Amino acid sequence: LVQAFTRLPGVGEKTALRFTLQLLGDQRAALEALSHALAEAAAHLRPCDSCGNIAEIGPDGSAVCGICADARRDQSQLCVVAKVQDLMAVERSGAMRGRYFVLGRLLSPLDGVGAEELPLAQLERQIVANGVQELVIATPPSVEGEATALHLAREFGRRVRVTRIASGIPHGGDLEFADPITLGRAMSGRRGLDA
Amino acid sequence: LVQAFTRLPGVGEKTALRFTLQLLGDQRAALEALSHALAEAAAHLRPCDSCGNIAEIGPDGSAVCGICADARRDQSQLCVVAKVQDLMAVERSGAMRGRYFVLGRLLSPLDGVGAEELPLAQLERQIVANGVQELVIATPPSVEGEATALHLAREFGRRVRVTRIASGIPHGGDLEFADPITLGRAMSGRRGLDA
Repeated sequence: LVQAFTRLPGVGEKTALRFTLQLLGDQRAALEALSHALAEAAAHLRPCDSCGNIAEIGPDGSAVCGICADARRDQSQLCVVAKVQDLMAVERSGAMRGRYFVLGRLLSPLDGVGAEELPLAQLERQIVANGVQELVIATPPSVEGEATALHLAREFGRRVRVTRIASGIPHGGDLEFADPITLGRAMSGRRGLDA
Repeated sequence: LVQAFTRLPGVGEKTALRFTLQLLGDQRAALEALSHALAEAAAHLRPCDSCGNIAEIGPDGSAVCGICADARRDQSQLCVVAKVQDLMAVERSGAMRGRYFVLGRLLSPLDGVGAEELPLAQLERQIVANGVQELVIATPPSVEGEATALHLAREFGRRVRVTRIASGIPHGGDLEFADPITLGRAMSGRRGLDA
């Protein structure tokens, strides 16, 4: 059990041992609840077959998440994110009416992650299957996120409109404390203002 | 001296007393250096007559800052900022080749700062004098900053092109931790991506 806990992000041997002894001590109910919840998750949840979001496994063995199953979503827009947490953040903001596609990783030549490790074939299937007209690249504005965005634009830019989310000063942010790259992007990304 | 020190931002009575006793104790050289620097600043520096940046007072009594005096700057672009620190931040980023205009304050109806307290007449003089074609509004993306940007667009939008710096995810920022308003702006401010 200690070894199994150390597989969680940010949990080392000592924390794992503390978790274990706590559960085996006077936390019997928590032990059973966690055991049950993990068994349920293993039996019923897996990444969505279409987009990679968390989805429930259906009676036929397929897994389709709530967003992909929702017919009211705009099929023509597909928002590409790096990870499920980012999908959740964009979804909470209410700014995306289309569907999503979770890449699961970003291009990172330094870490040996090349284009062949991106799920491009699966993304292409979604573009075709949904009749996607706009690919909204919402990877983070980091070196890896920008490299991935450019690669996707190169790969799909001839068939669909590829757009990139804005990078700039965040809401409530202060120019005084913004880094030069962000200020440069805020400046180059400026737009006409209509009163 | 203690009273005078308490006029500095973030300095209370106790800190002011500590400053004073330190200077009057064994820091005689620091006392004279500070006294000299303050006298020099009072005699030679004041806000630039054109833009509000810090400027040296010339022999004729006028004050023109280094940016306004530099003929190589693009006169057709005027970048409007809230305060001198923001001007310095944008200038450090190297993203602005035009000149600046420091508002000194932002619209804030709740604090009783109305449009009549903005230096609109002085801004208009700069627009006319420099033949400005684009007003780049670089006020912060806060409620007050946005209100001020809209007011300036209403005031000058018929005569010059008014643009607003981009708001969105900062460089290296994580979508997962971005607030919903910033995510909404990143989404609505998305732009076509050419590979």
